[in-house]
Amino acid sequence: MTGRFIVFEGVEGCGKTTQLQKLQQWLQADSRFKHCSVLVTRQPGGSELGLQLRRLLLEPRPSEPMQDRAELFLYAADRAQHVEGFLKPQLAAGAIILCDRYTDSTIAYQGYGRGLNLTVIEQLNQLATDGLESDLTFWLDVDVEIGLARAKRRGSVDRIEQANLDFHRRVQQGYTKLAKAHPQRIVRIDAEPSQEQVAHQIQTILNQHFFP
Amino acid sequence: MTGRFIVFEGVEGCGKTTQLQKLQQWLQADSRFKHCSVLVTRQPGGSELGLQLRRLLLEPRPSEPMQDRAELFLYAADRAQHVEGFLKPQLAAGAIILCDRYTDSTIAYQGYGRGLNLTVIEQLNQLATDGLESDLTFWLDVDVEIGLARAKRRGSVDRIEQANLDFHRRVQQGYTKLAKAHPQRIVRIDAEPSQEQVAHQIQTILNQHFFP
Repeated sequence: MTGRFIVFEGVEGCGKTTQLQKLQQWLQADSRFKHCSVLVTRQPGGSELGLQLRRLLLEPRPSEPMQDRAELFLYAADRAQHVEGFLKPQLAAGAIILCDRYTDSTIAYQGYGRGLNLTVIEQLNQLATDGLESDLTFWLDVDVEIGLARAKRRGSVDRIEQANLDFHRRVQQGYTKLAKAHPQRIVRIDAEPSQEQVAHQIQTILNQHFFP
Repeated sequence: MTGRFIVFEGVEGCGKTTQLQKLQQWLQADSRFKHCSVLVTRQPGGSELGLQLRRLLLEPRPSEPMQDRAELFLYAADRAQHVEGFLKPQLAAGAIILCDRYTDSTIAYQGYGRGLNLTVIEQLNQLATDGLESDLTFWLDVDVEIGLARAKRRGSVDRIEQANLDFHRRVQQGYTKLAKAHPQRIVRIDAEPSQEQVAHQIQTILNQHFFP
């Protein structure tokens, strides 16, 4: 793998989408990377199959609640398709990939949030990714209630966002534990200041640690 | 669980659908079971979510091949939804359930057919089913080429049926090994005689071993 694989994580409304776009623009404007593709992608939904799964996962399902283990396997299916069909070949071709959510989301949401077994989730992540880890993961840390209020302001609320506040607090707790357990890979970013200040934190870290 | 869980397995064109219907009619006409619901269901596709997954799994995908591990996880998602939302509650209520495919299909198709790790598949089956096994599995054993010719005659060919003959031969080999490994649970039925003769074999076995 000659490319770079950068992941953005965090609770609803933490500002991932905005920061992914800002970082893409910043990298594309930097002459150090003029020969690299800088690609923004996401999980779920980074492949044709993944887009169909994203719809199944996020649309509210009033007539039949989705079982927690079914949800877990759908995220794994999306991930396996994306890793094999997109991430691995693009990284092999030297791309810089900026990905909205990856394996830590499944630990935070399905593990800490839903309460599914963490060891099982780690095994499924390993199987789905064939061992592909991010080079660096930015955890955009925002207060859960501030994030959910932001998510509500931007429009209709999806099935995951509909879950109760306690669920989202457990997800946040999951990210806190993950960041402590993987200090080399996961960098906490204070995501409550302005978008420009958050972008500046991210760029500073990339300059210092990642593209020296 | 007070109900009974009967599964039908076999390669394409082995006659499962016909035999499921015949067995349902036979059980419904039998006064021993007049107080039982006799339900026909299937994997994939035995739930609302499962129907959507069945379409994703079986429709040909010319523009993006489905990755083997993604396929494996989609079958697991369908199974988890079906077990928790349908099979467990119906069995608890005393139903006799006749199911078109279950865990052995994943071992035969994704394990022997696609070549994925059998131990991993068994762990996923365990996780997806929460340990729910069939009370009895009928393996309708038909020559692969005869079965595929039957499947072609009945109309358009799905993504799995499109796989090459070697794939289907490996699937058949998988069923042969499974039947040897689980002689108490899996009963081989010679599925090459007429539909009536096959139905008679199935009814005889049920009368002798299952509803004495």
